Amino acid sequence: MDAPPKAKDIRAAAERIAPFVHRTPVLQSCYLNHLTGCTLFFKCENFQKAGAFKSRGAVNAVFSLGANESAAGVCTHSSGNHAQALARAAALRGIPAFIVMPENAPEVKVAAVKHYGGRITFCEPTLSSREETLSGLAATTGAIEIHPYNNNVIIAGQATAGMELIEAIPALNILLTPVGGGGLLSGTALSAHYFGKGIGVMAAEPAGADDAWRSLKEGRIVPSENPKTIADGLLTSLGSRTFPIIRQYVSAIHRVSEGGIIAAMQLIWERMKIVVEPSAATGLAAVLEYPDVFRGRKTGIILSGGNVDVKKLPW
Amino acid sequence: MDAPPKAKDIRAAAERIAPFVHRTPVLQSCYLNHLTGCTLFFKCENFQKAGAFKSRGAVNAVFSLGANESAAGVCTHSSGNHAQALARAAALRGIPAFIVMPENAPEVKVAAVKHYGGRITFCEPTLSSREETLSGLAATTGAIEIHPYNNNVIIAGQATAGMELIEAIPALNILLTPVGGGGLLSGTALSAHYFGKGIGVMAAEPAGADDAWRSLKEGRIVPSENPKTIADGLLTSLGSRTFPIIRQYVSAIHRVSEGGIIAAMQLIWERMKIVVEPSAATGLAAVLEYPDVFRGRKTGIILSGGNVDVKKLPW
Repeated sequence: MDAPPKAKDIRAAAERIAPFVHRTPVLQSCYLNHLTGCTLFFKCENFQKAGAFKSRGAVNAVFSLGANESAAGVCTHSSGNHAQALARAAALRGIPAFIVMPENAPEVKVAAVKHYGGRITFCEPTLSSREETLSGLAATTGAIEIHPYNNNVIIAGQATAGMELIEAIPALNILLTPVGGGGLLSGTALSAHYFGKGIGVMAAEPAGADDAWRSLKEGRIVPSENPKTIADGLLTSLGSRTFPIIRQYVSAIHRVSEGGIIAAMQLIWERMKIVVEPSAATGLAAVLEYPDVFRGRKTGIILSGGNVDVKKLPW
Repeated sequence: MDAPPKAKDIRAAAERIAPFVHRTPVLQSCYLNHLTGCTLFFKCENFQKAGAFKSRGAVNAVFSLGANESAAGVCTHSSGNHAQALARAAALRGIPAFIVMPENAPEVKVAAVKHYGGRITFCEPTLSSREETLSGLAATTGAIEIHPYNNNVIIAGQATAGMELIEAIPALNILLTPVGGGGLLSGTALSAHYFGKGIGVMAAEPAGADDAWRSLKEGRIVPSENPKTIADGLLTSLGSRTFPIIRQYVSAIHRVSEGGIIAAMQLIWERMKIVVEPSAATGLAAVLEYPDVFRGRKTGIILSGGNVDVKKLPW
């Protein structure tokens, strides 16, 4: 499909993925409400299968394929949560997942993909090498490429997180997500548009990887070049399918500092007693760095994932 | 009351504390079930108010006092979770809490007690200095001492965690808690006896602080002497009220290694994406170190708390 996902596509995704993913809980913290002067609702995708919202899109994509189409498997290049999620989704369907990963990918991420049965091909850690290796792999195996975000079926899957949060807390004023390639953000924006009532959708983006902020400002996709941030899920550029949705439906992107991300992550661990990865902490960081935007507002924050090496913490 | 709490005392405690504490969630992990060969149900007291099950007993004790009795406040000596919980409970009732803490108590724990409005008196880090300072404080202020565990109203409060877990998962085979002074363990044992059907109650204890294991073996309270463990909530000796209940209703105490505690804690953080303190990880450590005891059994584990300095982790 070329037009953005419709409400019925998101509803169909929710139904398709329900047997294979968690309807994650929505948590609150008295302490953080008091600290920020907002009422915050945290949608805990760190508790999602494979540890991140990416399972939603990956399962939707894999289970949307026809039997013939899917027989040779799926493939992608990713060193992050999409790789694990796609490997798991393919295993659930009983088809192979071919994952191209840079040879310098952290061992813990390689192990996680292997745990779910993904077949890894290593390449040089450049975008061109990743893309070449992937297209070679797709040609020889016949596997279908599942892009991590620039894919409407993926966007419809990621949209289900926001849909669930709106169902749980209909009176939200603001919905806030991190933005990397824009799959979660564009899906969330569509869900707010279709299923919410006057909910403003915003994003949090590391100042050191602010290509989405620049893209909105310039009205074109500005590529992410030499991004520098601890939020390793947010390094990628927006895509041709995510950008138009974000441009239409997202009211603001708030750039947050590295110190703010780390402080927010520590607050979430210490006060909420849950493990989130740096990318997931950008939302609370934005609330703390832009208090005037959020004060007094019912704000839903999607905690995007919890895959972090607990032996390598930033504090 | 001198006899152990009755079923009606535990039910009354549940009703009394309900407005002030969380009914905490019960979580499962496919990965940990697969790893252990059990079906594990984790009762998440790390999400409890003030970060530990101690809020149950403290609120029950503070709100059980008559108006006159409570007017001068409450007091205790503690450097741990009971201190925070009692300070919070007293604040909720609008009475002072006088907390005796050793002068070498970690700054993060001092700050937490202050956060809840506790009035701290520092003393030398010896049991005799703590007890003398406390009795002096009680004499000058008229505050009522609330012992952290050797108190039937505290035991009845702690018992509500196990009661809730049994209500949620009636088919449990085993209920497993850490043991320090025995407040949680004795309360859990009473709840299993009153509200469960054939549930075996067991405890996990650090091998380096195995006074409860020795006490059961010798049939008398063996004091905890020079305990050495990372599980800083489990250093104390059993009490005259907790020991008889444990002796009557607890079928086994499993001693676990320091390495086992740390490995279990890391597994819970990485796989369940939740923050637990070392004491809380002893239950999973026991399941991993004594697989024959638990294999194939529906095992409820009380994750006792989540108060840990995330800047000082043991791995």
